[in-house]
This record gives sequence, C-alpha cells and structure tokens, in this order.
Amino acid sequence: MSLLVVGTMAFDAIETPFGKSDKIVGGAATYIAWSASNFVKKINQVAVVGEDFPQAELDALKARGVQLDGVEIRKGEKSFFWSGRYHMDMNTRDTLDTQLNVLLNFDPVIPASYEDSDFVMLGNLMPSLQMQILDRLPKAPKLVVMDTMNFWMETAMDDLLKVMKRVDVLTINDSEARQLTNEYSLVKAAKKILSDFGPKYLVIKKGEHGALLFHGDHVFFAPALPLEEVFDPTGAGDTFAGGFIGHLAATKDISFENMKRGIIYGSALASFCVEKFGAERLREVTQAEIEARVKLFVDLVQFDIQLVD
Amino acid sequence: MSLLVVGTMAFDAIETPFGKSDKIVGGAATYIAWSASNFVKKINQVAVVGEDFPQAELDALKARGVQLDGVEIRKGEKSFFWSGRYHMDMNTRDTLDTQLNVLLNFDPVIPASYEDSDFVMLGNLMPSLQMQILDRLPKAPKLVVMDTMNFWMETAMDDLLKVMKRVDVLTINDSEARQLTNEYSLVKAAKKILSDFGPKYLVIKKGEHGALLFHGDHVFFAPALPLEEVFDPTGAGDTFAGGFIGHLAATKDISFENMKRGIIYGSALASFCVEKFGAERLREVTQAEIEARVKLFVDLVQFDIQLVD
Repeated sequence: MSLLVVGTMAFDAIETPFGKSDKIVGGAATYIAWSASNFVKKINQVAVVGEDFPQAELDALKARGVQLDGVEIRKGEKSFFWSGRYHMDMNTRDTLDTQLNVLLNFDPVIPASYEDSDFVMLGNLMPSLQMQILDRLPKAPKLVVMDTMNFWMETAMDDLLKVMKRVDVLTINDSEARQLTNEYSLVKAAKKILSDFGPKYLVIKKGEHGALLFHGDHVFFAPALPLEEVFDPTGAGDTFAGGFIGHLAATKDISFENMKRGIIYGSALASFCVEKFGAERLREVTQAEIEARVKLFVDLVQFDIQLVD
Repeated sequence: MSLLVVGTMAFDAIETPFGKSDKIVGGAATYIAWSASNFVKKINQVAVVGEDFPQAELDALKARGVQLDGVEIRKGEKSFFWSGRYHMDMNTRDTLDTQLNVLLNFDPVIPASYEDSDFVMLGNLMPSLQMQILDRLPKAPKLVVMDTMNFWMETAMDDLLKVMKRVDVLTINDSEARQLTNEYSLVKAAKKILSDFGPKYLVIKKGEHGALLFHGDHVFFAPALPLEEVFDPTGAGDTFAGGFIGHLAATKDISFENMKRGIIYGSALASFCVEKFGAERLREVTQAEIEARVKLFVDLVQFDIQLVD
C-alpha cells in the first residue's frame, strides 16, 4: 500500500516582510512529498519539471523513498515558476509572477510501478489534470484527498466541481470555503460543501488560526502552534496535507478519529515548514522533533473538566 | 469569599450586517455579572448608572445574587451610552456614538458589605478608575483580573501602565496585544507583557479564532466554538472574562490548570452571548446548557495520540 502524489514541482521566489529568497525549489508536490515521507516509505510521485530542475533535489527525494518514475523531465524546457510577496499578516499574499512553462501541456502518466497507489493526494493543480489522474488510476483508491485554491474557482469552476465529486477529502482555506459556497459562516459553508459538492470530509485551513475538520455532524479543531516567528508560509498548506495523508496512508486507517491524528501531524509538520524559506526545514526535521512537536500540541489544548454526565 | 466586579452598566445601540438593536442594556460590568453569576453566588457590583437605567434590570441582577450596594444611581443624569456598527467579519467595528454621561465624574465607593471581595474583576473602564478600585479595596485580594481596550492605550497609556503593574491576569485582544508591545508575533507580545508590564498571566482573545492563555513558558489555547451564526458579538469579551473569573472564584483555585478550565467556561459562556442581541441569551442560559456546551469544547479539541515517551 502506498501513496500517490500529484502536483507541481517548481521554482518559487518569495518576499516576506522579513526577507527575500532567491529562486528556490518549491511546488505543492515537492512539499507534500517531503512531509509525507516522514510517514510513508513509498511515495509514487507524478509531476513534470523542466531541464532546469536540480538533480540534487530529485536525488534527495529519491533517498527519502519518493519514486520518480512518474516525474517527467522535459529537455529544453523550464519548470513552473511562481513569485509572490506576503503581507504583514503572513496569511495574504500578492502574486508577482507566474510562468506556467512545462505545465502548459502536462499530460500525466501513471507508471505500472505505481499500481499499489491506495492513497491519492491531488495537490493543487489545474482541476482538469487532477481529473486525468483519477481517470488514469489502475484501480479505485482507498482514499482521495484533494487540495485546490481560489484561482481555479475563478478560472475553471466547472472542472473543479466535476473533480470534487470524486474526492473523499477536500482541503481548502477559509476564504476559499466562503468563495466556493457564498456563505460567510464556515459552519454553513462546510455543511453546504459536505451535502452538495461531493467530499465527505472537509478540512478548512485557517493559517495561523489552525484548521477545522468537518464530517457529518462532527467537527474537530486543531490550533496552529503559536510561533515566535513565521519566516515563510509558502508550502505550509501542502506540508499540512502531506502530513495528514501520510499519517493516514501509513496507518491504513481512514476513520474520523485517525483523521484527527492526521490533522495534528499535518499541523506539526506545517509548523516546521514556516520556520525557514522553502522546504529547507522539512529536509532536516527528525522523527524525535516531530514527536516533540506533537507533544506541544497535546499540552496546548488539553484540559481536564469533570462533567456531570 | 466573593467576587468584586467593576465596570460600566450602560446602554448600547448595535448594528450588525444581520440586524439592528434598539437602545438596549449593556456595559462591561453587566455582561460580567450575568456570566459570573452562573458560578458565584455573591457578586459585589461597583458601577454608576443614570436615572434612566431600568429598575427591572437591577432587580434581575439582584435575583442572581448580584449585590448592588456599590451601584450608584444618579438622579437626573443619564447612563453611559455607546453605539457601534460591526463589519462583516464581526471582529471589527466602528464606534458611531459615545456619551460618557454619568461616567464623567464617577467616584467609585466600595461599601463595607463588600469586604469579603477576594476576587476582583476590573472590567473595561478608564484606567484611573480601575486604579481607584484597587486603592480602595479593604484588603489585598487573592486575584485581580483586568480587561482593557485600545482606546485607553491611545488616551491614557500612563495610567494604564500603572494599573497593569498591580494586576495578576490581563485580558486583551490580539490587536491590542500588538499595539501595546509593538510586536506582531503574539508569542513575542505575550513574552514582553509577562516580563515587563506586571501581569503574570495573560489572556489574548482572538474572537472567532479562540483565546490563548500565557504564563511563564506555558501556553494554553481554547478555540471559539464554530457557530452557524454570530448574531451580535457585543459583550462577548466581558462575558468570557466573567465566566473565567467566576469559575476561579467559585473553585477558589488560581492554578494554571484551573485557569485552563476557566478559559473553557469563559469561552462557553461567550458562545451563548453572541447568539442574541445584548445579554438576552445570558439571562436564560441554564446550568445544563453550559455543561452541554463545555462537552462540545471537549469533543472539538480532544484527540488521542500515543507518544513514544
């Protein structure tokens, strides 16, 4: 049993109120793979990169158990590039530049060696490509988690609605939940998504304000760890998703109780991600550090009230 | 052992994106008293009202165990009046009108019958008046909790800094913590407040995003309950403070562990407050409803992860 991940592997150039990065390795599938590889030892990666994508990055991922048979390297072409500037709150950002490059005619192929993909993480990508992945899977997966963003709601809503019908868990942020449903209340937005849009589980990511997991009438909330400094939030949502599905795939348990634990592991990994530019911190994090951070989440929220019944 | 509460008892006129109230009873000390009276059976209220303040409101509070010997009724004068309009996020608001009226020359008197005041709640008020209360207490209290707001940071910072030196627990919201310390990170802001400003405990209220309790190196976080509708957030912070100190006073336990429970009770009471205009919902809430809501908080945040050590 293993985890298929699809999404961008790319370059980012990031400005925050506290610093500025050169062109560094980024992309949803990169962050998801780094994060999930703490839990899952075989990750089936599907992506397209240009000739400019560093071999050292591919080697490092390979050493973590990330299979690259499904990562196409296009000779003479350039990788996807995104550049953005974060506002003071580190929750909102402006896109400065987007160069689709290799993404323009990406035709994802799922190699035969990926036929054990029981868990599928559709990282943020054109909805039509996310749909192609689902169409091309060799067998029905146990769980499909999908991440998306406001950009696709504005430019590819029909495709987005179609692919959403086929996923089990949707992860979006609070403003995207509002945009998708036209409901300001996140509780109302969640009810609408769960009843009308397809997914049976919904994760609403609220950045520094934590994350909510909705399923039926159940709600679970995990705070973000209060941090002294958020250095770079890029990839935090992808890292969260990677930790979430990585834990589920590793434990082969898709119960609501286990999804709660997935949310905590995802939140723990995301709290590392924001400590340095790009995926730098994710490359060095140890199992002991992850356990210690999960312990901080326990301490942060646990209380003991004796109720009458 | 009982709880002394000081603050405004007043009239509010409130506009939200969802409705508009007439001139209704409000004021920090009113909300605190309604909330704390679910826990403490003798509340020693200190306030000043005009002749226009409804006797029925005073009678209702009296019936809840709120002592009114320290509530001065000024003949021929009008009660404090505030009018405001909330934005769509229900977290930010514009003040439309403020009429100080009786507050202009409020000279608080602590009656002899209040000499058992071991717990003191300084509701939001001019810092100089909060200081007078502390100066006029018959004996040193066991715990002083103080609420304040950005308005006093802008108009009476020196007085505010002085009174802060004498309180145990400070409750402010996130933007006020940033304003007070010039630190954007709430963790850094909290460290500065706890090390330099006087209080040994700090509660940062984040509205719909919950509340943080800081003490030394300890942090506790309680979410706000995800609600389908927030009808009127007026008084939610005061209600929270009333539930918090009410629980502490009732249990006579000022440990960090018990403060966590206080935060949960405060959050539960605040979640009722916002369901209707003014303090209407607080008047009718039952012990069974409070217990049921605390249970929702337990369900919302509890998870079970087996850590290695």
